[in-house]
Amino acid sequence: MSQSIVGASTPQVTAREKVMGRAQYAGDIKLAGMLHAKVLRSPHPHARIVGIDTSAAKALAGVRLVVTGCDTPTRLWGPHRKEQRILAAGVVRHVGEEVAAVVAVSEEIARDALDLIRVEYEQLPALLSPEAALADGAPEIHAGTRNIGHEMHIERGDVDAGFAAAAAVYEATYDMHSQYPGYLEPMASVATQDGNGRLTVYASTQSVFLARSRMAEALDRPASTIRVVQATTGGGFGAKIVEENNSLICAFLATKLDRPVRLVNNRLEDFQGARASVPAKVWLRMGLSADGMIVAKDVRITAECGAFSGLAGDVMHVSAMRSDNMHRVTNVRSHAVLAYTNNPPRGAFRGFGGQQMQFPLNCHLTVLAGMIGMDPIEVHKRNAIGRGETSVHGWQIGSTGMQECLEMTRQAIGWDAKRNAPRGTGTRRRGVGIAAAMHVSGNRTLGNWDGSTILLKLNEDGRVMLQTSECDMGQGANTMLSQICAQEMGIPLSHVTVMVPDTDTSPFCLGSLASRVTIISGNAVLRAAREAKQKVLALAAEKFGVEMASLSFADGRISVPGQPDKSAMLAEIARLHIFRHGGEGIHVRATYDAPTVMHDASYYGNIAPAYSFAAQAVEVEVDTCTGRVTVIDSFVADDCGKAINPLAVHGQTHGATVQAIGWTLYEHLRYEDGRLQNGNFADYTMATADALPMLRTDLVESNDPNGPFGAKGASETAILPGAAAIANAVHHAIGVRIHSLPITPEKVLAALRERHETEKETAHA
Amino acid sequence: MSQSIVGASTPQVTAREKVMGRAQYAGDIKLAGMLHAKVLRSPHPHARIVGIDTSAAKALAGVRLVVTGCDTPTRLWGPHRKEQRILAAGVVRHVGEEVAAVVAVSEEIARDALDLIRVEYEQLPALLSPEAALADGAPEIHAGTRNIGHEMHIERGDVDAGFAAAAAVYEATYDMHSQYPGYLEPMASVATQDGNGRLTVYASTQSVFLARSRMAEALDRPASTIRVVQATTGGGFGAKIVEENNSLICAFLATKLDRPVRLVNNRLEDFQGARASVPAKVWLRMGLSADGMIVAKDVRITAECGAFSGLAGDVMHVSAMRSDNMHRVTNVRSHAVLAYTNNPPRGAFRGFGGQQMQFPLNCHLTVLAGMIGMDPIEVHKRNAIGRGETSVHGWQIGSTGMQECLEMTRQAIGWDAKRNAPRGTGTRRRGVGIAAAMHVSGNRTLGNWDGSTILLKLNEDGRVMLQTSECDMGQGANTMLSQICAQEMGIPLSHVTVMVPDTDTSPFCLGSLASRVTIISGNAVLRAAREAKQKVLALAAEKFGVEMASLSFADGRISVPGQPDKSAMLAEIARLHIFRHGGEGIHVRATYDAPTVMHDASYYGNIAPAYSFAAQAVEVEVDTCTGRVTVIDSFVADDCGKAINPLAVHGQTHGATVQAIGWTLYEHLRYEDGRLQNGNFADYTMATADALPMLRTDLVESNDPNGPFGAKGASETAILPGAAAIANAVHHAIGVRIHSLPITPEKVLAALRERHETEKETAHA
Repeated sequence: MSQSIVGASTPQVTAREKVMGRAQYAGDIKLAGMLHAKVLRSPHPHARIVGIDTSAAKALAGVRLVVTGCDTPTRLWGPHRKEQRILAAGVVRHVGEEVAAVVAVSEEIARDALDLIRVEYEQLPALLSPEAALADGAPEIHAGTRNIGHEMHIERGDVDAGFAAAAAVYEATYDMHSQYPGYLEPMASVATQDGNGRLTVYASTQSVFLARSRMAEALDRPASTIRVVQATTGGGFGAKIVEENNSLICAFLATKLDRPVRLVNNRLEDFQGARASVPAKVWLRMGLSADGMIVAKDVRITAECGAFSGLAGDVMHVSAMRSDNMHRVTNVRSHAVLAYTNNPPRGAFRGFGGQQMQFPLNCHLTVLAGMIGMDPIEVHKRNAIGRGETSVHGWQIGSTGMQECLEMTRQAIGWDAKRNAPRGTGTRRRGVGIAAAMHVSGNRTLGNWDGSTILLKLNEDGRVMLQTSECDMGQGANTMLSQICAQEMGIPLSHVTVMVPDTDTSPFCLGSLASRVTIISGNAVLRAAREAKQKVLALAAEKFGVEMASLSFADGRISVPGQPDKSAMLAEIARLHIFRHGGEGIHVRATYDAPTVMHDASYYGNIAPAYSFAAQAVEVEVDTCTGRVTVIDSFVADDCGKAINPLAVHGQTHGATVQAIGWTLYEHLRYEDGRLQNGNFADYTMATADALPMLRTDLVESNDPNGPFGAKGASETAILPGAAAIANAVHHAIGVRIHSLPITPEKVLAALRERHETEKETAHA
Repeated sequence: MSQSIVGASTPQVTAREKVMGRAQYAGDIKLAGMLHAKVLRSPHPHARIVGIDTSAAKALAGVRLVVTGCDTPTRLWGPHRKEQRILAAGVVRHVGEEVAAVVAVSEEIARDALDLIRVEYEQLPALLSPEAALADGAPEIHAGTRNIGHEMHIERGDVDAGFAAAAAVYEATYDMHSQYPGYLEPMASVATQDGNGRLTVYASTQSVFLARSRMAEALDRPASTIRVVQATTGGGFGAKIVEENNSLICAFLATKLDRPVRLVNNRLEDFQGARASVPAKVWLRMGLSADGMIVAKDVRITAECGAFSGLAGDVMHVSAMRSDNMHRVTNVRSHAVLAYTNNPPRGAFRGFGGQQMQFPLNCHLTVLAGMIGMDPIEVHKRNAIGRGETSVHGWQIGSTGMQECLEMTRQAIGWDAKRNAPRGTGTRRRGVGIAAAMHVSGNRTLGNWDGSTILLKLNEDGRVMLQTSECDMGQGANTMLSQICAQEMGIPLSHVTVMVPDTDTSPFCLGSLASRVTIISGNAVLRAAREAKQKVLALAAEKFGVEMASLSFADGRISVPGQPDKSAMLAEIARLHIFRHGGEGIHVRATYDAPTVMHDASYYGNIAPAYSFAAQAVEVEVDTCTGRVTVIDSFVADDCGKAINPLAVHGQTHGATVQAIGWTLYEHLRYEDGRLQNGNFADYTMATADALPMLRTDLVESNDPNGPFGAKGASETAILPGAAAIANAVHHAIGVRIHSLPITPEKVLAALRERHETEKETAHA
């Protein structure tokens, strides 16, 4: 077969219905008799619920149900720690926590009814920072936790000896804030319970099976009584993996009413209800030898999960050790503590903790490179782990394009010409910065399984139906799976249909997270397509009375070269596979579980079948009058193994780049006394087109041996280097280093003033 | 395992939603933006469409679309002969044929708009009987057919020699009318085309895959672009297998509008649009030896398919030869002709042509038994084919309970006491009659495949999801499959969920026809459950470090007897099957294709894996003043191999018995010039409770070697003997034999008058 389908830039197979406005997002779904829900949230970061009076709300015309925490199942749920109820009962632990829900004949009436609910709170002391929460004698947000949600120590090699041998040592503390996922589609669900008591939930989700497990737990009913169907999903970015409450509340309300219920977050509700990324303070000390080798690294992380731990411990785990694996380091030490606070809960986010260490690490690396008089790209390249090597934590690197990414980046940004001297005139100063990063493609640590099962059905018209539970949230999973299938089956892309994930009928999969879908589910599709093709060829060989090896299969036709009478369309063989003695439809199941190794108690293992790499260079212009930083050029080199769909990889890389720029310069969740002040897109300023340069990306195809057609996870890596590249470029431009994100004009001006004062003092001294 | 689930009388697993009124029949489905369709039908049995003016209809406020035959695809469809379009184009061939369709915002407006469509017809000569259609020089309804839809000849042995050796020979012609299927739910569909151009049709159907094939053909688009989902279905009785136009029209309209469209037949429309059973005239000559053996049988059948042939040829095929297989006959001859007429098309119906021969055969057998002075039960028993024997047409009888059925019937009705003399006094005369019949359990002849595939998924809570495309139309398929699965897996019935047939996700199956589901799909479930259990046991053995053989599996728990620490719930093993290295969900596919043999060109073969038998005795009271015949007692013995769910078998047997009584005495489609005169339940008098005796049934469990737990098709056989049993009883009661159905008071009085005249003449002579 030609490689014309895999590797071709292909519009998304889901595009047509989206551009026509006909895709059914959860909020678009209309079921007969459907009611509308709204949720009342806590205005206090920490308070005891003394009493709730719902009588006026219940009396409002059009209201069908009002529930509070006391009505919800008492079983606690959580991805790890079981600490949440569907609605708060007895105590609220953060502003925005769900306290009551109303169902009414319209969204407007439901919203009006919220105003009629009287909740009497007794405020409790609020712990609004990790420092406060971890202070001796602080009250416990969850009893018995000492306000520690998770804690880990990792140490390998001899860190102290490493530092002793270092030519340069630098230490600093970095402060990284929380980022709202900012997807186009806020959380939304429609739930309905049928006459047989089975609950169906249409959800905006990254994983229907994780959603089902969570609902089974939170609703305290068997998983088999619940069906989760993925609605068209407008972005997830980690926040729709498993930590959202929207679908739980919606599902619960439907079970109480036996009527379909719709619950759609408006943007403010989504800012309040969705889990933003995990903020972290990182103290990093790192040493470089005179020849640029990283000889020691010591890290202390204080991450904050807010009121509930969710997946934040896993995120912190990644911050604590993932970046170590991109370099040939041997002496590393991490101590990481996750603090409960009375801020809103935090959780999974694109990059999954990677950026919380890549920002410190890449800033450090540039500083240290400067200290030994070496180009930071050279430092990265000297330390970069190679193909076939095993990292300090046991990761086996089957492929890496890190060297190529760095080299490509260097060329693209004009590094050598620009790096020696900052450019610009007057108050507009320009500088360049680079950073590199790595990411996983899959992750065994979710339950010692990182598999994906595909069902492939060859219809009687020779076309293929694929069933998976890996969710397309817009990132292009369905297109990628279709391409692999069409390529392997030798049929047009349009002859493959990927069905909607549905826990009733789809095979068990973990879902779209950890950049796992391309390599894991892609391999499963490859296996399924091969098995289906084998069945087709075996039957054709029988029909034609020839050996399978003598068959040719191309463009949907099976033939015996040179024997024109021995030829059949795929559809004909598909029908014959059924309509014969002992026949059956061609219906293939294939599973790929990554050939990885679960980490041991010391976190040593090989948790992903492949690892992706990226490098980014930016050029910034800093206005020293206003402090404004503008990214005027950005180039990302993304090592995705093989771009199944280059168009999609570029698109995802662009998105990740923008999200990194937003985190670094613009986006900032502002709280006062635990209350979000800017839960809207006017005040929470995500980067829009006018704030961005023409984004440039290119791909490195390192051809991973475990990857389908060599492919591994694409583009999630691209969110990781941005912040450090910008901070490094700012430093290059104006000579000040900002350790705290976001890099606001105020911080830039403050740093410039501070440097000016220092210089004056130095001059006077 | 105990036999506590299979064999237990179990309420239908679909009962709860039905009794709560929450089951979603197609007509109940409401989709957002849904429009409503109505269909204009031909008032003429045969006419050329000169012109159609739809302008006024289109101009009516609320009308969204008006289409006529010219708008529909030109490709012709049909189960065998391709002779229909979705709407008639150019010519109409029967009253009720679909000529135009309107879609509007309400059903009422759509109906109003029909009145505004002006169709100019030029009437053509109508052929309203097979005699007229088959007459020399008759115009052809379909060009090149000589008005013959199908014709077959079968001859085995030496029929003429058989007659020569006969002690008694009787010949007569029987006239059998068409019966409306009379299900609770008329045809109904909802269709919608999504933004990706895929069409979904929610249909009231017996076979989603046959429906999809038919739609692909009629709509002239690839099958993979169509999804057919079975809505809750309120009875099928054969009419919802594949011949209905409702879903085709609805689907077509949805593709034109890109809006959901609902088309629900009202009862009159269903009388006009649904295919009723195939009427037939049967000339039968049969000879008995002095010892009661059937030595020769000669049959000539003229069946009528009406305007389109559909499945009527298959029905006639059954009439022509199926009944031969219940006896040890060797000399048989059939010549059967299917005539096109300008009456409405006829097709599949419960019993599928069996009753059109069992009525003549069983009447004949009673007459001939009388001629040689033998009890007809004795004649049946002497001739009855035995277990292990091969019938004249090659059918291999793996099990038969015919002898037991006859004996049980004899006892139950009090045959020996009642048969010698009719009872009753004055004008109320009572008589008894019996008949016996056989039916297939499955049928390979639909495409040399009679298989069924089951997907079984074991969820993480240890519960099972089953996917099949065999449709439950109320007959209890889902309950039966659940029972077999629960029994074999050793789990409670409530832990099995059978999902809705859906061509996108369900495995390919033929559907619910030919009494095939219990034996075919039941076996597939049995295989799937065994395979799933094997997977569970293999993993448990590995986990416990023991041999599989030492494991015990009962009540959802796997354990090692005597080692209480080695025990796990099914759910735990199901989870472990995923969450381990190389794991995957337990997801099993199993197919059962019956071990049968396709018949050859002479119709010799073994087409079903099992054959079911039944016998019925009735007692009637005939009012010689009014001619009214009342069934005052009915007993049916049904050989179903093994009753998986006795409650359901009894229920289905009752239903079949009532339908047979209705056909024999009450139901009568009345036409004038090809126009139905009584398309409603006031004038088309199906038997209601006050017209029926207390129905009695009992089961014979002949334990078929191919059957799951010995089961084979139940209860369809029970529709076959009723007409003859009643006719025989009428003869017994009043000495006249009615050869023409229905046995109306008029016919009875006419026959009594005729006999009286004959007696008078004889007395005078």
